Amino acid sequence: MQLARLIGPDLLALAEENPAEVAELVDEIHPEDVAQIVAELEDEQARSLLTALPTDYAAQVLARLDEERQGRLAELLGARSVAAIATEMPADDRADFFSVLPDSVGDPAFEELERVAPQAAEEVEEIQSFPEKSAGRWMTTDYIAVDSTLRLGVAIEEIRAKAADAETVETIYVTDQPGHLIGTLSLRQLLLSKPNELVSEVMHGNPISVPSDMDQEEVAKLIANYDLHTLPVVDQQGSLLGVITSDDVLDVIREETAEDMEKMGGMEALDAPYLKIAFGRMVKKRASWLAALFLGEMLTATAMAYFEDEIARAVVLAMFVPLIISSGGNSGSQASTLVIRAMALDEVKLKDVWRVVRRELAAGLVLGTVLGTIGFFRIVVWQTFSPLYGKHYMLVAITVFGSLVGVVTFGTLAGAFLPFTLRKLGFDPASASAPFVATLVDVTGLVIYFTMASIVLHGTLL
Amino acid sequence: MQLARLIGPDLLALAEENPAEVAELVDEIHPEDVAQIVAELEDEQARSLLTALPTDYAAQVLARLDEERQGRLAELLGARSVAAIATEMPADDRADFFSVLPDSVGDPAFEELERVAPQAAEEVEEIQSFPEKSAGRWMTTDYIAVDSTLRLGVAIEEIRAKAADAETVETIYVTDQPGHLIGTLSLRQLLLSKPNELVSEVMHGNPISVPSDMDQEEVAKLIANYDLHTLPVVDQQGSLLGVITSDDVLDVIREETAEDMEKMGGMEALDAPYLKIAFGRMVKKRASWLAALFLGEMLTATAMAYFEDEIARAVVLAMFVPLIISSGGNSGSQASTLVIRAMALDEVKLKDVWRVVRRELAAGLVLGTVLGTIGFFRIVVWQTFSPLYGKHYMLVAITVFGSLVGVVTFGTLAGAFLPFTLRKLGFDPASASAPFVATLVDVTGLVIYFTMASIVLHGTLL
Repeated sequence: MQLARLIGPDLLALAEENPAEVAELVDEIHPEDVAQIVAELEDEQARSLLTALPTDYAAQVLARLDEERQGRLAELLGARSVAAIATEMPADDRADFFSVLPDSVGDPAFEELERVAPQAAEEVEEIQSFPEKSAGRWMTTDYIAVDSTLRLGVAIEEIRAKAADAETVETIYVTDQPGHLIGTLSLRQLLLSKPNELVSEVMHGNPISVPSDMDQEEVAKLIANYDLHTLPVVDQQGSLLGVITSDDVLDVIREETAEDMEKMGGMEALDAPYLKIAFGRMVKKRASWLAALFLGEMLTATAMAYFEDEIARAVVLAMFVPLIISSGGNSGSQASTLVIRAMALDEVKLKDVWRVVRRELAAGLVLGTVLGTIGFFRIVVWQTFSPLYGKHYMLVAITVFGSLVGVVTFGTLAGAFLPFTLRKLGFDPASASAPFVATLVDVTGLVIYFTMASIVLHGTLL
Repeated sequence: MQLARLIGPDLLALAEENPAEVAELVDEIHPEDVAQIVAELEDEQARSLLTALPTDYAAQVLARLDEERQGRLAELLGARSVAAIATEMPADDRADFFSVLPDSVGDPAFEELERVAPQAAEEVEEIQSFPEKSAGRWMTTDYIAVDSTLRLGVAIEEIRAKAADAETVETIYVTDQPGHLIGTLSLRQLLLSKPNELVSEVMHGNPISVPSDMDQEEVAKLIANYDLHTLPVVDQQGSLLGVITSDDVLDVIREETAEDMEKMGGMEALDAPYLKIAFGRMVKKRASWLAALFLGEMLTATAMAYFEDEIARAVVLAMFVPLIISSGGNSGSQASTLVIRAMALDEVKLKDVWRVVRRELAAGLVLGTVLGTIGFFRIVVWQTFSPLYGKHYMLVAITVFGSLVGVVTFGTLAGAFLPFTLRKLGFDPASASAPFVATLVDVTGLVIYFTMASIVLHGTLL
């Protein structure tokens, strides 16, 4: 990797002066490194470097750039070059690539692809016919399958002939005559077996496979749990359609994680890197969430107005309002984070709701008592130094203690319960973000606090 | 998978009646499925099922159970069975396994392992000698390496002989005479090349490798960015020590994500599944964070006390306190989430700090103006229906508008800046959790609000 950073400028100079040597040079460099170099170049420079690269290598570099850049470079390269490069991409990358190109260059390039490599174009159409974010959309059709009735010697010859084009060779898929997936062969088994054995005798039966419409988050979980390198995709009849490879899973998991984090931070997911997304688009995505939370939070002003008389009579009550409601919000966001995380890792399922609620009720009471005790002593100790809270300071301290127990318990319960409700209703539990829970708890917190005050302080301050 | 759920009870019955048939039955079942069955069984039943399984299969099942269960079953199985099972695990899983066993069974089992399989025991000690969470701790030593001076025909024979024991065979590593890693051979290349070619002629040079002390989060990023299936680990001299496989990466990425989420939710990372961690341990981890936030939040009571006179004179001011401070907290947690996420994805680096701050300053001003405008009209429109805010309602509305612009801008800036500061100081930027930012912004928000009020309302309400 260090190598690539050093040779970046040289590579560009070479591409301009002596394109023929570029091919030789990049043979030992990972396409990711060249993609990082290209990402820093001006469009025109990037184009000349891509043109100097061998087509199959250029395909790997181009597929690693961000969508916007892919579009701009495709415009510069023109339909013919784009089609030639796309032909060299694995089928899944090729389908992705065409789905992000602007029509102005994507349409002529696809027509060109249909002309020069009809099979490659057909694969794109096939993959794009599956719903977005489904297993089918994500699979490659560049795998190797052999018939179960072959002898291993013959099968190995077939595999050898197909290996150069396949995206994955570690696992060979075994199909019966109508094309149903019935087993797998590992290269390890091939290395260890004798040429005259039948494929059906050596293969591993009962392979794990998924239907083409399975959601990609489910697919990612399956691959992670079963430590799979590849996962075959089948249609309703069990016929092999394609294969998902585990390197694609890493990307999906990272994307899903980023989305979850953004939801939990109280905003719609950005669909581009932070420094690259247009300012207006970013602000719009953020403003809509903040405004929604703000409208909810307005209820606090209504609640406070309702208790205006109490505040006027005992201004000391106002002093603890931020402390009380923020404690409820913090404990609520803690509980919702815990539950969302446990749901994402499948540690907690919908049916566990009452176990979780019981646990969080207990946790909330303990946590509330801890914070309440700290708050109580804060007031009592402070009072001995400066008589800030008046002669009824002990009653104020009791009010704060009781309110904290109530607010923290309520916040914890609400935070734990909300993700279950959202999932039950078919929403993403990660939408139970900290700010959302806090807003919910703030209003209730005020009601709990002032109700507690009117009970404890009745006849003295109120 | 469905299959395994159906046969769960049968498998157990068979293990008790006719253990010999179990081996044949599980041949077609993924160990993860059997692990899920075992997870639901009583300890004694689990023990008899594990005993009935072929040792290498039992090893795969045991390695997939959670730590506590591994310890309890190891006690029941006894040192000799444990050593026999551990011998069949890949070296990295074996090292993990011994690191989680309680000493009471781990020590005698390890002594037994040293006796029956000294090499396996040595591998465990070697892996455990690397620091926790480093690349060395995570690698397997069950890989295949061949000498660069061999002819391919000879190399293939060597590979064939070693393939049965290796965890990964898709990539073969090539070393020179002193053992330095100098290249890789893919099985695909082997399939396509001629037996009399030299390994050094066919191999792919300049392999990507990592030092044994690299942090596992860095390793995971590298594997994800470069779409690697395996990644070799070398010592300072460049000698090959072991290999990391991408299936382990998925687990690490999920763990790291969960930790980040927990930090962002305002708590220390739990180190066990939610429903399994002891109640006391969980509450302790949560209470420490909540208490720390609570102590910080107490400054709001101090700030409110400072403005007691203003509140007493204009109680209407108290009504908007929750709304103002929560808006600052929400915008701050949104900004910090964005920056933390962008840092995790390497979209933003330390050197980008001023670009980000400029962007967030602009975003904060826009978002503050949006919320301020909503707040302004809320007060003005409400007043026409019920004269809640007195005759100076217009001045109150202006105070709220100005405060929101100030508080949201400050919150956004603070939320964006904090992750940079934490990273610069060597802490995890994810510690800039929503609750932490909110606490910081709450106090400042109060000061901004009451300062704004004293300017706008001077001579009227104040």
